[in-house]
Amino acid sequence: MNTKPRKVMIIGSGNVGTSAAYALLNQNICEALLLVDLDTARVEGHCQDLRDAAAFMPGMMSIDVRDAGDCADVDIAVLTVSGGALKPGQTRLDELTNTAQIVKKIVPQMMAGGFNGIFLVATNPCDIITWQVWQLSGLPRSQVIGTGVWLDTTRLRRTLAEKLEIGAQSIDAFILGEHGDAQFPVWSHSSVYGSPVSDVCLKQTGQPLDRDALAETVRKLGFEIYARKGCTEYGIAATIAEICRNIFTGSHRALAISCILDGEYGERGLAIGVPAVLAQSGVQQIIELQLAPDEQVKFSHAVSVIKSNIARLP
Amino acid sequence: MNTKPRKVMIIGSGNVGTSAAYALLNQNICEALLLVDLDTARVEGHCQDLRDAAAFMPGMMSIDVRDAGDCADVDIAVLTVSGGALKPGQTRLDELTNTAQIVKKIVPQMMAGGFNGIFLVATNPCDIITWQVWQLSGLPRSQVIGTGVWLDTTRLRRTLAEKLEIGAQSIDAFILGEHGDAQFPVWSHSSVYGSPVSDVCLKQTGQPLDRDALAETVRKLGFEIYARKGCTEYGIAATIAEICRNIFTGSHRALAISCILDGEYGERGLAIGVPAVLAQSGVQQIIELQLAPDEQVKFSHAVSVIKSNIARLP
Amino acid sequence: MNTKPRKVMIIGSGNVGTSAAYALLNQNICEALLLVDLDTARVEGHCQDLRDAAAFMPGMMSIDVRDAGDCADVDIAVLTVSGGALKPGQTRLDELTNTAQIVKKIVPQMMAGGFNGIFLVATNPCDIITWQVWQLSGLPRSQVIGTGVWLDTTRLRRTLAEKLEIGAQSIDAFILGEHGDAQFPVWSHSSVYGSPVSDVCLKQTGQPLDRDALAETVRKLGFEIYARKGCTEYGIAATIAEICRNIFTGSHRALAISCILDGEYGERGLAIGVPAVLAQSGVQQIIELQLAPDEQVKFSHAVSVIKSNIARLP
Amino acid sequence: MNTKPRKVMIIGSGNVGTSAAYALLNQNICEALLLVDLDTARVEGHCQDLRDAAAFMPGMMSIDVRDAGDCADVDIAVLTVSGGALKPGQTRLDELTNTAQIVKKIVPQMMAGGFNGIFLVATNPCDIITWQVWQLSGLPRSQVIGTGVWLDTTRLRRTLAEKLEIGAQSIDAFILGEHGDAQFPVWSHSSVYGSPVSDVCLKQTGQPLDRDALAETVRKLGFEIYARKGCTEYGIAATIAEICRNIFTGSHRALAISCILDGEYGERGLAIGVPAVLAQSGVQQIIELQLAPDEQVKFSHAVSVIKSNIARLP
Repeated sequence: MNTKPRKVMIIGSGNVGTSAAYALLNQNICEALLLVDLDTARVEGHCQDLRDAAAFMPGMMSIDVRDAGDCADVDIAVLTVSGGALKPGQTRLDELTNTAQIVKKIVPQMMAGGFNGIFLVATNPCDIITWQVWQLSGLPRSQVIGTGVWLDTTRLRRTLAEKLEIGAQSIDAFILGEHGDAQFPVWSHSSVYGSPVSDVCLKQTGQPLDRDALAETVRKLGFEIYARKGCTEYGIAATIAEICRNIFTGSHRALAISCILDGEYGERGLAIGVPAVLAQSGVQQIIELQLAPDEQVKFSHAVSVIKSNIARLP
Repeated sequence: MNTKPRKVMIIGSGNVGTSAAYALLNQNICEALLLVDLDTARVEGHCQDLRDAAAFMPGMMSIDVRDAGDCADVDIAVLTVSGGALKPGQTRLDELTNTAQIVKKIVPQMMAGGFNGIFLVATNPCDIITWQVWQLSGLPRSQVIGTGVWLDTTRLRRTLAEKLEIGAQSIDAFILGEHGDAQFPVWSHSSVYGSPVSDVCLKQTGQPLDRDALAETVRKLGFEIYARKGCTEYGIAATIAEICRNIFTGSHRALAISCILDGEYGERGLAIGVPAVLAQSGVQQIIELQLAPDEQVKFSHAVSVIKSNIARLP
Repeated sequence: MNTKPRKVMIIGSGNVGTSAAYALLNQNICEALLLVDLDTARVEGHCQDLRDAAAFMPGMMSIDVRDAGDCADVDIAVLTVSGGALKPGQTRLDELTNTAQIVKKIVPQMMAGGFNGIFLVATNPCDIITWQVWQLSGLPRSQVIGTGVWLDTTRLRRTLAEKLEIGAQSIDAFILGEHGDAQFPVWSHSSVYGSPVSDVCLKQTGQPLDRDALAETVRKLGFEIYARKGCTEYGIAATIAEICRNIFTGSHRALAISCILDGEYGERGLAIGVPAVLAQSGVQQIIELQLAPDEQVKFSHAVSVIKSNIARLP
Repeated sequence: MNTKPRKVMIIGSGNVGTSAAYALLNQNICEALLLVDLDTARVEGHCQDLRDAAAFMPGMMSIDVRDAGDCADVDIAVLTVSGGALKPGQTRLDELTNTAQIVKKIVPQMMAGGFNGIFLVATNPCDIITWQVWQLSGLPRSQVIGTGVWLDTTRLRRTLAEKLEIGAQSIDAFILGEHGDAQFPVWSHSSVYGSPVSDVCLKQTGQPLDRDALAETVRKLGFEIYARKGCTEYGIAATIAEICRNIFTGSHRALAISCILDGEYGERGLAIGVPAVLAQSGVQQIIELQLAPDEQVKFSHAVSVIKSNIARLP
């Protein structure tokens, strides 16, 4: 017998974790959700609430509270823990120390529990924590990824879609780098039906594309949402669901997610957002783009930002 | 040209409203979401966050903030407003007065705006507010419904499913009455593959079914979730999505939802949870079950509970 | 690493087999389709045609031509081979001898190839061939099932749905017995929202339900379709897809399919249509209904029809 | 009340028409299917067979046989009629005369019946018949489209996907021109994650991409399938379903389909495969690509091939 339920463990039951669980459930992406949180009352409440919702779905999704270490049967473990909320003026990197301490406890517990699935890190600062998880886990780098700039890429596409009145799925625009301030759009590779985005923009709107303003809008979008509602949850949860779906279905699609580099782009010793082909085994390969000179500078900057923060890991 | 985007307006952007929006989006049930809330910053934040998620979906869902009165093009308006959080020891009926004042403002605004879709009330106390909305709207009763006991019915089914290890979709168990303490399972009509639930339970578990304990578990489930996480959102949001889906697809499925009675079950002058066949025009018909004597007593009790609260409407 | 592509092998690339492949593909039920047929040109043509379609789906479904014996990695093997077309006046049982000879070759090849998944038999006469496959395979009986009367059950439900103007999903009507003339509706267990079907029919249509005429309509529906278009394909293919979906998602739903009896209903030594709870391991349990006396007579008749044909197996 | 069932009429119940109906049903794209065919027995058989399948779907899809003229309520009318099967050595253009005679009868019937939806032409020669339908209908050109080279584009993508082991959804390769021999890939605009296809091919396979061989493979794929199985159905049916889905959901995606040109690409007086943004009203705009000189030559050739055949329309 080969058929097994597809199991996703969600570590952390804050807004991001539970919204990810809800997206996975609503999209029928897996058959088992395992929720992990130290706040046992809250996580049990979420579990019951999600079970009510699961009863409407066509399969029989099982939803249970678990200890992190009870994970030998888990296919994908989504890390959404957080060391505490961002305060005004703080960057994602400021969350680092507290969060890293938590990660340092959980990952060894999971490895002791026999985890051999795929780590999907949504915890910020995403690229740094992805690296930390990989270091702590000892897993092949194909099995440790972060949501990285895929949410930012989506934001770029949907913002362009709104401006151009063309569907986001027809906009092949890309962001690379850090899921943070050191991200950048790869205009040299971005197009709409194969035409440069700036040409299409001029034709559609009669106005030149202000690339820098657009990149800034996208970069700040998460902070704007945060400022308005006190959290961001739905976009990142949809990103998590999308990555899980591409893994389970072995889509071989290329998504720009946080990957451990081992020579690609001439770098190693960090995780950073680059296009990766996703298969059931995780990252099947990293795609190396031929960056334009100004993009190469931005990539190098992102590398040094991430590396300097990795150096600060406890 | 006949084809139009299917539009759902969500009134209230608390946990229930935004989770309902998220469920509708993840299940691709409509093409436009319109969010209404007095807290303009928060609702704009939710709108941006949901747009990030929508970009992953196959269609081009538009998500916008709207005034309640701008609703002439809306197919289904979901009412999730609340007069304030429940305090310990309070019942759903205690929320009545504050909430009813809000409803009294919004519904006339919407009717003035030309609303002619279906009102779906998720606001508690659900049956009373459903009645109030109908009274205020002047719409045909087929166009005003409440989520009512459909969530409770689902809770009964999934609780039985867990106990019997049989899928919730194969458990034809029903709850009628008030979405509150005056709800009751209709054991005389409940079965698993046509066999009485109690027989199946005995066979599957070796133990007789404690009907009263089970009914109590189901009745209290919402409060338990509330006690643990401070809100309930995912189950009710999935209920909203399910009802919207059945309306848009014209499924003609019979769901026990809150309907205005006009002689059915020998009653009028209230909304109460009874099985209703859902079509694109709303309630296509109400199904009258032949209740057992003890169930009839419980139904009458629910009627009087609801009516006495309707009498307290401001 | 736990995650594997879900693989369905379709044995026979006639109308039923290829329509089943198409339904599985359109519903995203698995990630790999393996097509088996002696007519290598035709099956390669179907493979290419299906690959064109698969490119529209969100996953990367692989579709390949295979030898039957290359099946160690297969989760579900769907048998759709046929010994030749039905001629006018022939019953499903007349197809027996030719078909059984083909099955006798294929199943041992597959067992030699290490098959340890679930056999799903759609080949007619379905109950007899299901038994034959089980005998030849030596697999646990939980892993050998036939589509049996689930298509007939669906036909009963949708015919009632059209008559009553209530959705098929709200009609809990059941057929048991042989997928052939010896099938029968279990009226004692059939209901609409828990009310007897005949009561609902009288209320909805003003006319009593002619049970015998309806059962006859359902029984003859396949032959009518056959007479009009020369084959039946879409209904049976949807049945196959539905059963596969319930297996892969571990729904634990109870579907009336052809199961090997080992004492249930007081019988053994045959496969016959009875309600079975489907899980990822196949039949998780058979549900025994308390039949009414006239239904018991019909069940016994179906048993003897099937057994007498099993005795004729080559 | 705004909500209406989404209705697709399928004209012609051969393999393409019924497979399209089956794809629409399995993907829950609309709520009503209307089947039109002169062979009343066969089409009624398909109708019954499809109704059996529809009962498994979550909505209540209605499926009925209709006269072509009874179409005032239809959203999308899919033309799949054929003047007879292709004989060996014949091109798609050889089918022209017979088919055009049929179209000449049907379209005026439909316009007399008040049709005001979108014509989607799958009948070959697709570009010529699309033009003919537009001429006969008098509808705005936004409401008359053909499946055109979207199937060929998909074939190019999935063939590259198999070669590169990258998902078809990540391959932004395009075909323009005639759905026939005068089609051509637009290499100047084709990329994988923004990198030229030929670069990616070299990196992935170690071998240069033989563009002409690949284009030839794609161009001949339909004929190969036809030679092997005597028809093509699943790929084209999935194309039809995909276009319908993009229209109903108003995706604003750009698909290369057959559109009536009115000055775009410097041409008018024909339908030809170009990228078109699809909305609920049909073609919302045509995207004009800056073709490379050799591509411009091929485009002009396709234009003259199509125009010379339009001149032969009866």
